[in-house]
Amino acid sequence: MPIVTLLTDFGTTDGYVGEMKGVLLSEVPEATVIDITHEIPAHDVELARLTVARYWRRFPRDTIHIAVVDPGVGSSRAALAVAADGRYLVGPDNGVLSPALLVVGAQAVALAVPSHSSATFHGRDVFAPAAARLARGVSIHDLGDRLASPIVRRTPEPRRGHHGELVGQVIAIDRFGNAITNLAGIAGELRVAEQSIPLRRTYADLAAGEVGAVIGSSGLIEIAVRDGRAADVLELSRGTTVTLRRASAP
Amino acid sequence: MPIVTLLTDFGTTDGYVGEMKGVLLSEVPEATVIDITHEIPAHDVELARLTVARYWRRFPRDTIHIAVVDPGVGSSRAALAVAADGRYLVGPDNGVLSPALLVVGAQAVALAVPSHSSATFHGRDVFAPAAARLARGVSIHDLGDRLASPIVRRTPEPRRGHHGELVGQVIAIDRFGNAITNLAGIAGELRVAEQSIPLRRTYADLAAGEVGAVIGSSGLIEIAVRDGRAADVLELSRGTTVTLRRASAP
Amino acid sequence: MPIVTLLTDFGTTDGYVGEMKGVLLSEVPEATVIDITHEIPAHDVELARLTVARYWRRFPRDTIHIAVVDPGVGSSRAALAVAADGRYLVGPDNGVLSPALLVVGAQAVALAVPSHSSATFHGRDVFAPAAARLARGVSIHDLGDRLASPIVRRTPEPRRGHHGELVGQVIAIDRFGNAITNLAGIAGELRVAEQSIPLRRTYADLAAGEVGAVIGSSGLIEIAVRDGRAADVLELSRGTTVTLRRASAP
Repeated sequence: MPIVTLLTDFGTTDGYVGEMKGVLLSEVPEATVIDITHEIPAHDVELARLTVARYWRRFPRDTIHIAVVDPGVGSSRAALAVAADGRYLVGPDNGVLSPALLVVGAQAVALAVPSHSSATFHGRDVFAPAAARLARGVSIHDLGDRLASPIVRRTPEPRRGHHGELVGQVIAIDRFGNAITNLAGIAGELRVAEQSIPLRRTYADLAAGEVGAVIGSSGLIEIAVRDGRAADVLELSRGTTVTLRRASAP
Repeated sequence: MPIVTLLTDFGTTDGYVGEMKGVLLSEVPEATVIDITHEIPAHDVELARLTVARYWRRFPRDTIHIAVVDPGVGSSRAALAVAADGRYLVGPDNGVLSPALLVVGAQAVALAVPSHSSATFHGRDVFAPAAARLARGVSIHDLGDRLASPIVRRTPEPRRGHHGELVGQVIAIDRFGNAITNLAGIAGELRVAEQSIPLRRTYADLAAGEVGAVIGSSGLIEIAVRDGRAADVLELSRGTTVTLRRASAP
Repeated sequence: MPIVTLLTDFGTTDGYVGEMKGVLLSEVPEATVIDITHEIPAHDVELARLTVARYWRRFPRDTIHIAVVDPGVGSSRAALAVAADGRYLVGPDNGVLSPALLVVGAQAVALAVPSHSSATFHGRDVFAPAAARLARGVSIHDLGDRLASPIVRRTPEPRRGHHGELVGQVIAIDRFGNAITNLAGIAGELRVAEQSIPLRRTYADLAAGEVGAVIGSSGLIEIAVRDGRAADVLELSRGTTVTLRRASAP
């Protein structure tokens, strides 16, 4: 039974996601349809990209991931299907599928847009039908022509500062108010603005209300407040600078 | 494997939807249970009706749709099962199932309310069990007696204005702040209050912050703002008047 | 086909739930994965416990329930698998699984934490893998050693007041603003602060804006306002005192 996952910024109340699921199941009634989220903030391609990065390879081979955050729907932006590491992804060519496109051997094709398609809802008229065809075993090469240079967005890399420190940034705030950074370090002194943030093993090693940093579940340093929201307490948001001075030679 | 979809205004945190899913799967463990939404604003039968209209016929034949937005639960309002166009729907007799009831040949029966039912939760005690019976192949006619005149709510029709223009209205605001109207026209001059709204093919044909109208994915004109929320920018809400003057002979 | 349900306080946008579903389906691709909720307020073990109580026994035997609201993740708190009444539950040892632990014959084991586990995400690295093993038919006794005294949290019992009345409290506010109490009575005079609340059969027996009490769908008295939010109108919250004077001998 094919597994098809769905990530959108559509919310659920308007019925757009319902339409997509109906199209999918009309074509592949035996599919296992898995909701990832429909609550990506409207048009937030960057958060969608980071979220896709978390889950797409956790699913078994042959899983088909639909990811539609698509402010450019109906414009000249391409519609993509991607094969990477034995999984498939479909979505707009705006960077949302970057985590798969960056894998060695990834292949992308440009999906044809059926002539009857709505200019405002390719999730229903382009991406769900393409996912259904993949779920039925159609080869990705039968879905469209190879696209040589799909758009790829990368998480910004930390840079080296004047004093040897790593200068990174907050890349996401999660539901708990934890601030996830692009720093993968372990030991050292973490600073936000003028404040030093102690490193801990897990949230529960902090006292109530205490600020600290932990190695999060994707290997990146994140800043947390026990029983609180670090993003609010420290006024952190996407892009806030965070520095890490390695605890090495003095 | 039967497909059963769920739309409610219950939210998910209180566990009411969990109870319904448990009842369903206890009766039909092999069912494919599909969430449409549980985030319909409390008691908003009108939005639920519009949402049902979007998805119910997109699903394959024999799908069973549960739609429970039910401010009259436990009162004398009937509980319905509907067969229409090869699909089934269950829900309260308050208009939420109108999109199916309006189809030629639709049949409705009044569900019996089991004596042990809670007076406040027919989703669990009436509608989920009825859906389970339909999923197991029980005939709709074995679920209750024919109901001659179920309640039907219709989207208001535009009227003809004094100067030949169509006078319509906003019928819904979607998650993106787009204002969906009851106007199905194509060419012409669209006006809200004193403002003329240019017609475009898709959102991306608008400049950043620009107001425009497009033909939405269900064929109705909707008003959008690129990178913004039309409902906020133009102070639109359900019922706001929108007029369309056809671009015909002068 | 094994049924696995998921309750968390993770929200969906960050992809944590997506990761858990991927881990589950990689191990048990044929599983039916059912979302209960991911919108439990962050760290609200008490609400999660009440929600689990509602649904866990509604599902068929052999269902596996994952419930992860886990402020103590990575600390010395145990990770549990529970067998009770033919169902299985996995989650942290903080009371969230109490509804099953209170059942006669319930058995709990302490899950081993794999050495590669993230210290901040046992949902993905401990609980989903344990659920997958149960879904594949592994005995709960092969998952860990018996835990003699898991943490159990109980809904507070009403106490008897000086004048023979029952003194209870609000235990939850649901999505509709209804205030659910720990009082199971039927007839009598219900009071909140100085206000007497009339008992009704269902919400629709109240006039618009009227305050009343009904027997809710789990058998407990709840306070409602027709077309309104009782919690707001009467300023009720978890812990607000509610008294019931039985309508017995004068």
